[in-house]
This record gives sequence, structure tokens and C-alpha cells, in this order.
Amino acid sequence: MVTIKDIANRLGIAPSTVSKGLNDANDISPDLKKLVLDTAIEMGYVTKKMKKETHKRLCLFIENMQYEHPQDFGFDIILGFRQAAIRDDWEVHIVPITPILQLREPYDRYMMRNNYHGGFLVGFALRDPWMNQLETTTIPTVLFDNCIRKNPNVAYIGTDSFEGIDIAIEHLIALGHTKIALLNGSPDSMITTDRYNAYVSSMQSHGLPVDESLVAHGHYVEESAKYHTASLIKSGATAILCGNDLLAIGVIKECRRMHVKLPQELSVIGFDNIPAAETISPALTTISQDRVDLGRNSFAALYWLIAKVPISKSLLRPELIVRESTAQVRTSL
Amino acid sequence: MVTIKDIANRLGIAPSTVSKGLNDANDISPDLKKLVLDTAIEMGYVTKKMKKETHKRLCLFIENMQYEHPQDFGFDIILGFRQAAIRDDWEVHIVPITPILQLREPYDRYMMRNNYHGGFLVGFALRDPWMNQLETTTIPTVLFDNCIRKNPNVAYIGTDSFEGIDIAIEHLIALGHTKIALLNGSPDSMITTDRYNAYVSSMQSHGLPVDESLVAHGHYVEESAKYHTASLIKSGATAILCGNDLLAIGVIKECRRMHVKLPQELSVIGFDNIPAAETISPALTTISQDRVDLGRNSFAALYWLIAKVPISKSLLRPELIVRESTAQVRTSL
Repeated sequence: MVTIKDIANRLGIAPSTVSKGLNDANDISPDLKKLVLDTAIEMGYVTKKMKKETHKRLCLFIENMQYEHPQDFGFDIILGFRQAAIRDDWEVHIVPITPILQLREPYDRYMMRNNYHGGFLVGFALRDPWMNQLETTTIPTVLFDNCIRKNPNVAYIGTDSFEGIDIAIEHLIALGHTKIALLNGSPDSMITTDRYNAYVSSMQSHGLPVDESLVAHGHYVEESAKYHTASLIKSGATAILCGNDLLAIGVIKECRRMHVKLPQELSVIGFDNIPAAETISPALTTISQDRVDLGRNSFAALYWLIAKVPISKSLLRPELIVRESTAQVRTSL
Repeated sequence: MVTIKDIANRLGIAPSTVSKGLNDANDISPDLKKLVLDTAIEMGYVTKKMKKETHKRLCLFIENMQYEHPQDFGFDIILGFRQAAIRDDWEVHIVPITPILQLREPYDRYMMRNNYHGGFLVGFALRDPWMNQLETTTIPTVLFDNCIRKNPNVAYIGTDSFEGIDIAIEHLIALGHTKIALLNGSPDSMITTDRYNAYVSSMQSHGLPVDESLVAHGHYVEESAKYHTASLIKSGATAILCGNDLLAIGVIKECRRMHVKLPQELSVIGFDNIPAAETISPALTTISQDRVDLGRNSFAALYWLIAKVPISKSLLRPELIVRESTAQVRTSL
């Protein structure tokens, strides 16, 4: 079990200072207080105050996404959400969900029966039973990477795909690439459409033609790369921009199988910056979404929806992390 | 001067309850506390705590926009911003600004010299001297209706133009209109481009052709309507969607002069919902931006930028306010 001493060691401060931070004392700075609380949550320490019943409850539903271990995509999203919520005394319940469970009870009734003031939905697909119900829900709700039109109670949070794709394409152009392919994810997702539109608009704004033989759609999993990597290379691609890191890792593995040398013969860029992006060889250049910040921003949006401010969407800046999978284009012989 | 009694009368509660709210007492509900504080700020009451020096200071710069009276566009933006900021103990300075003043000192230096932790810029034009500097500023900054690419310290806040234009077009289509014109504002503004793109995408998604003879650009002022109203009608428009309310009011006045009957012969829709939209005859159907909420959301974005969460954009839902300037299309003879 995590103790105050563990937190003190981690931060390199006295245990008494940690106690002050956890007990909201007046003689430590607000910034240090926040840091102590953030660290306590990250390390799984539970204060008396957190154990106390509160009438302020939020529910985070998670589907189609791993979240239990630090390397899982959902882990940091939950961490950031809880860190931000706890500062304002909200209790957060994490509920794994499936379509079957959603069929058992309508969303609004579930939320009201459990006294939740707001919901944060992560990893839902467009076909999920609750998604239709969100068009008319009266419960303040934040959706990660999904957008509901016209309902002032529902906000969309995510990372700005347009800016992400654009900085990736600018990076490739600076390396001399012009034959830039897009290997995108599942066609029934809003994010896929956004990333495709971003690709088209970025290519055009840099004066490059959009060649549909350089665009392919798979799903957001490694093995989709098997079906498209060879044909994209055959169509002349010198670089492949992928809809997420799993697809990019799939491309790297497929190139290994086909003896295509990376990055000399092909540059590859992912999207997300999952932990595996750093450990694969060559290490993956990728567009990073900061998942702790996504979680914090989701709480912020939910907080304001609960206060009746009709937030429609709130997006974070992506950041390009340059590693080893991108290089100067090979001059044609 | 506003007294505690005035606030009590306005809210219909006891003066002692107002005192409790202003003094952060523990025996009134947090919601009532917020309401008391919001009302105090709205009525111009200043508490001792507000008078006290604090090291937490924000600056709101305002340009090209009236803000001193309740009917001014900027008034409620400032109100909402101050209401949200004061709850978290921020001191807010309101500074009217001009391009000349911006030339005197770089933005970052001005902010640091005055100990401001963050800035909120309202009404700036793309050509303003400080706009270029925002591409590299290290000061957390929120811009209303303007977007700076790639700088994680700067966020854009506004109202979702795409959804706004789309609900207006859906309203007109439901009334039988298909010849829907767009009278847009100044061409050198991001918002103008957004609204044009939104118009094109909404028309297309409803299966209507985009006829460039039904699109005109003026400036965001009444008199621009003089140069375009007749020609849009001549091109067959049965409805004119305007880039803001001032343009729409200009169209109404121009139709009055030309003896075009509204809304029987022409439907008109504005954008913003300024107070004049309600008083003109016929009263203007318009896409509303809630300016108090815009102010609150701007503080929220600035708060998170200061906490190093790189918010890129945060948009509010628009709302269609149906009044008298739109009607069923007249069936052609």
C-alpha cells in the first residue's frame, strides 16, 4: 500500500509537506498542493477525504480500450481526468461497458439511478446503443473522439487532427517527400474522416496533388497494414502516414518481412505516441496526443457543461515526436 | 453605489445570505455562492477580497469592439470572463488597445512587465502587430475568433460556425427554400472563411448546388448590404444568410428601401444575436452566440493553458433563434 512517505520520496520533499498538501493546509503553495495531490492519485494513495461520501459524482465509461496498465492507451486518460476532478472534490467511478450492458438500460436512466452528475465516454463506436441516445440526453456528457450534433449537453474532446496531419506532412516535405501515402483506419469513425480531410487539405495547401492510389483504409490494428503496405509502395509512396501507431507498427513489420529498408527506402509516421512507438525498431516518428492532458481537458469540458456552458468541442494541440522512422527521401536513380 | 441589499433584492434572498456568499461561508450551498458572486460582479459590487492585491493577474485586451454598455457586443464577454475568473481569485484588468499601442511594446514584454499570467484578446484583426508575435509567445493567451497555428500557449475560442450555418440552412430548407444566398463579411478573417466553408458543406450535404452568384462578400457592417442585396435577389435568392447581424439588419433596411416585402418575398438570417436583432422590424431570425458563456469558456481555456494543458480550440454550440424574418418560400407563379 502506498504511504505518505512513498509520495514524499517520489517528490523529494518532507512527509510533513505531503501531509499538508493532502490536508489542504494554508501554509504551502497552491502549485505544490496540486502536485502533491496529482502524485498521490497517480500512485494510488487514497485520502480520508476521498473515502468520504460526496454528492458530486461523475462516471467514466470505457469501451474497446485497455486502461489498466501504464502502457495502455486509456490509463493516462483516466489518470488526468481523476487528477483534475479530485481537485474540485468530485468522486469518479470507472465503469467498463459493452454494447450488451448498454442495451439493458437507457443512458439517462442509468445516470440518474446512480446519481451521476455527468459522464465521460471513452472508446465508444458510432454503432453503440447509447450513441443514438446522446442526441437527446439531458445529462452533461463528454465524448472522446466522437461528436454529437446539436445537443448542448454533449461535448467532443480530442486532439486537433488537422494540425497533427499538417505538421507530419510538413516534416515529410522538409525531408524531400512528395509521394506521401495515407494509411487510414476504420471507415465508420469520425476521426478517420477528419484525418482524411486533413490529409487532403494539407497536401493541397502545400501544392501537392492528392493521388487516390496513395490512400488506403484499413482498421486501427496492426494487421491491416498487411493488406496495404505493398500496394502503397507499388503506387510510388516514399512515405506512409498512418491513422494510428498500431497501423504504423504494422507497416514497419510488413516492411521487415518484405526486406524494405526503413527509413532509407520508406518513411513511416504514426499517430498517438503509444509506448510501443518508442520501443519498436526503427523507433516510430509519430504525432503525439498527450493522454493525461486529454483526461484533464475532458474534466474541464464536463465541469463547464454541468455549469450550463454549452461546449461543443475542445481540442488539444498535437506534437510531432521525431524518432528514427523518417528520413530524407532517397533520390531516384 | 451597489450595496449588499441591492444584490439581495435582485435575487430575492436575505442580505445576510448575500454576505455569506460574498464571504465564502460554509453554511450556504456552493451553487448559491456562485450565483451571489456572479450577480455581485454583474451589478458592479466590489468585495474587500476583490480590492486586495493578488499575484494572480489576467489581462483582457479589447479592440474594434464596443463593450461599455449592456447592448454592446463585448459587454457580456467581459462579464462572463470576470465572473469565472473571480471564483478562482484572479484579478482581471480590461485594457482597450489599438495597433499603435501594440507597436510601442512587444506583447510578451508588456505582459511580463505588468505581471500578467495570461491574456485574453478580443476583436483583434489578422493584421494587428501583436498577431504575428502570438506565433511564438510563451504567455498563455486566448484569442476570440482567431486561430494561431502550432503554438501550444495560444488557444482559439469561439462559436461553432459549421453547426450554426448548418442549423440555419436546415431551418430555411424546412421552409421550402433552395436558393439560399450567403452575404459574408470581411474576406481577411478566419471566421469569414469558416462560415463560407460551412455554407458550402451544408448546402452539399443537403443535396443543394452551390451557386457562386448567390455568394457575396462585404464587411461586417450594415452598409455592405447596400452593394449586394439587389444583385443576390436578382440572382434568384429567396433567402439570404448573413455573416453577422449587422449585415442582416443592412439587408432588412435595403429591402425596405426597395419595397421588397419581408419575410414574404425574402427570408433573412443573421449571426450573433445582438440586442438590435430583437428590436428591428421584422425581428431578426439569427444564430445566437451566448457571449456570457463565451467569456466563461475563455477563462476556462486560459486557466488550462496556464496549467500547461495545450488547448488548441474550444468552441461553443450556437443556437437558432427564430423570429419574424424567415418564412415559407413563396411558391413561384
